[in-house]
Amino acid sequence: MASIKPRTLSGFMELLPAPQLQMERIMETLRTTYALYGFTPLDTPAIESAEVLLAKGGGETEKQIYRFTKGDSDLALRFDLTVPLAKYVALHYGELSFPFRRYQIGKVYRGERAQRGRFREFYQADIDIIGDGKLDIVNEAEIPSVIYKTFTALGLRRFQIRVNNRKILNGFYASLGLSEQSGDIMRTADKLEKIGAENVRKILVEDLAIGEEKADAILSFMAISGTNDQVLAALEGYRGQNETLDQGIDELATVTKYLADFGVPQENFAVDLTIARGLDYYTGTVYETTLLDHPEIGSVCSGGRYDNLAEYYIDKQLPGVGISIGLTRLFYVLGEQHMLNGDMNTAPADALVLPMTADLSPAIRLATELRAQGIRTQLYFEQKKFKAKMSYADKLAIPYTVFLGEDEIAQGKCSVKDLRTGVQETVTPEEAAGKIKAGIEALNQGKVIVE
Amino acid sequence: MASIKPRTLSGFMELLPAPQLQMERIMETLRTTYALYGFTPLDTPAIESAEVLLAKGGGETEKQIYRFTKGDSDLALRFDLTVPLAKYVALHYGELSFPFRRYQIGKVYRGERAQRGRFREFYQADIDIIGDGKLDIVNEAEIPSVIYKTFTALGLRRFQIRVNNRKILNGFYASLGLSEQSGDIMRTADKLEKIGAENVRKILVEDLAIGEEKADAILSFMAISGTNDQVLAALEGYRGQNETLDQGIDELATVTKYLADFGVPQENFAVDLTIARGLDYYTGTVYETTLLDHPEIGSVCSGGRYDNLAEYYIDKQLPGVGISIGLTRLFYVLGEQHMLNGDMNTAPADALVLPMTADLSPAIRLATELRAQGIRTQLYFEQKKFKAKMSYADKLAIPYTVFLGEDEIAQGKCSVKDLRTGVQETVTPEEAAGKIKAGIEALNQGKVIVE
Repeated sequence: MASIKPRTLSGFMELLPAPQLQMERIMETLRTTYALYGFTPLDTPAIESAEVLLAKGGGETEKQIYRFTKGDSDLALRFDLTVPLAKYVALHYGELSFPFRRYQIGKVYRGERAQRGRFREFYQADIDIIGDGKLDIVNEAEIPSVIYKTFTALGLRRFQIRVNNRKILNGFYASLGLSEQSGDIMRTADKLEKIGAENVRKILVEDLAIGEEKADAILSFMAISGTNDQVLAALEGYRGQNETLDQGIDELATVTKYLADFGVPQENFAVDLTIARGLDYYTGTVYETTLLDHPEIGSVCSGGRYDNLAEYYIDKQLPGVGISIGLTRLFYVLGEQHMLNGDMNTAPADALVLPMTADLSPAIRLATELRAQGIRTQLYFEQKKFKAKMSYADKLAIPYTVFLGEDEIAQGKCSVKDLRTGVQETVTPEEAAGKIKAGIEALNQGKVIVE
Repeated sequence: MASIKPRTLSGFMELLPAPQLQMERIMETLRTTYALYGFTPLDTPAIESAEVLLAKGGGETEKQIYRFTKGDSDLALRFDLTVPLAKYVALHYGELSFPFRRYQIGKVYRGERAQRGRFREFYQADIDIIGDGKLDIVNEAEIPSVIYKTFTALGLRRFQIRVNNRKILNGFYASLGLSEQSGDIMRTADKLEKIGAENVRKILVEDLAIGEEKADAILSFMAISGTNDQVLAALEGYRGQNETLDQGIDELATVTKYLADFGVPQENFAVDLTIARGLDYYTGTVYETTLLDHPEIGSVCSGGRYDNLAEYYIDKQLPGVGISIGLTRLFYVLGEQHMLNGDMNTAPADALVLPMTADLSPAIRLATELRAQGIRTQLYFEQKKFKAKMSYADKLAIPYTVFLGEDEIAQGKCSVKDLRTGVQETVTPEEAAGKIKAGIEALNQGKVIVE
């Protein structure tokens, strides 16, 4: 007797088979694309010592973390993949070669308040390049090309990678003598699109007590826009006031210069001086990626350059640059926006073999042959009416059924039915395999995301 | 200043990049092979409500489970993939088509006492076929073919899938009037290989108070051996004494009959009446898989037929058959036995492009072209001496380096060096891509396991 009501916790994504196959395709695409750029896969434990995970400490993280004891051990579930990477690199420092390029696709845990589209268990898909002591700026130019290649491989076209450099912002505020307030100014500037220039100015002057002249200087700086070349040209006018600012302009120019060589089209890339990405961690180039037709989603792939990955674990300067895709949320949002390809082959099998004789040997041999050809094949063994068998294939959207009755067996043939066209043909097993393989190849051409 | 010593918890596998790539290859092989048999991938949360996970309750599980509270919720980490499958099928019963064939490769957690080769976080790789009400016996014949295909795809050859049927054991003990003691007898019989027939007999008679005649009957039954046909022929002699026993003999005969059609060679399969696989859960065919040259490892892939997957969650009869590979332990053991292919390409990239000019554009364009051809390519941007750059390629065992100096650029060519042969040639980018692709394809022919 059933005694416990089955349920899945709120905030935990659990997909039915068809969407799960879409998710698997996305992960497969990420693995392949990340590997193409020389990133090696890593897998670290979901559980770490709480002391290790919380080395940096700090507010929100500590509140949201899943922390518990087992025996004498104070344990916690990882809340991102960056802290485990820092631990990994510090722990295995002597065994790694630098620059160390790794990708990791794994589940992380945050006990946030449950709400629509927010997950407590979610996949992150991260890449990072870690240098030992130094890391050349050109690595920061390569990152947008990984984003571009990944997103186009998934099927996205209308997206924009927005790039800025924290040194430009920090240097500019320093040139105004506002270093101390740079955090507050960035937070205010962040609201520009939402509340407008007039209101931003008001906050700067009234709340942050910034002089009117400086406030206007900030506003004209934030207003710099246009093509990448135009923005870079405008920035040249700010040269010579602050060393950090000059360095930031150089870096941004380098990143922009190499983009075309890395294969990133102009229309998928924008220098945007309003991008700031948080406050402490990032020190150079920062990235955000938005879907042009869905700005309300916010950034779907973000990251940047940092100077010291593992300072809590090792006395080595380990600068790096990385990006992260919040995969579970992205998948959820794509579903909401009807952007997941409904025509994708999400059947558990390419072919369903239906034995029509009491002796199953011929049908099993046929299935074995199809499988040897790489065709995902199911055999239907259950004693059901023919209609029920066909309805099974229909419900699962299995593209081909293969019948094997006495007549077919006598002729050394089988009957293949294409369930989309309804066309049925009696052919040899080799012809059947060729037919199904060609059909499946055509069916699998589509990408997982459609715009 | 580093303040926390970086460490990974004991009992948690964390691999360096090269072995991680071997592990990834194993998982990729499992995904592909499982899919070939029409199993669809599933992914369920690592955290479930403790009440749901512990619905069945019971000793060892309850002691080993990672259980904790977050807010008001009593939570636990899954300790296998079977209970989450039961929950999933019960919860989504109305949305699934049966027979439901799924695979899942995921981490599970057991807070066992730490010891060599035992893991607290480990991957299981499971397949199951779940029927609604009924499930045909032929499904039980298909399972060994999945094991065979999976293991040979990984590179194993000297393994044996041992099969028995619980109905034969239960029926035979019932025919002796020993149903009540069948559990104790099976546990004793299990020691046959280790302690010998004489000692088994002693335990049966002295400890279990079984009459001498019956003890001898049990011993002669356990002694049945030979080819599959010989064992099945010997079993015919036991027909007519007990209905369950007869049914078990029929089932075992059916499973054996279809093996060749499913492509399983005789030498990889053995009917073995000593296999019992625990006590309660399994009700029909049971499987164990052993490596012939490493019997000390025990079974590396086990499972069987069960009658009621989700009885705690739903009032539906859901019989099934499944197997599980303890992937983390298997990987560990293969490493210990030096059975992982050391010649496998475990480099993070197939080619390392070394720019030899100040302007990086030509090198970046070349790398972009190689990537477009599917070649995993890294660019080395760091300002290091030539020797340091080559040592980076060497250490990571990157098979090809590609140099691009002024001369090559002027000629529209590049210099490709095969690091295994030391041969260097100056060729066009297209020729370079062709060369590298052919070399990599040859290099990737090998399987991940060698015997």
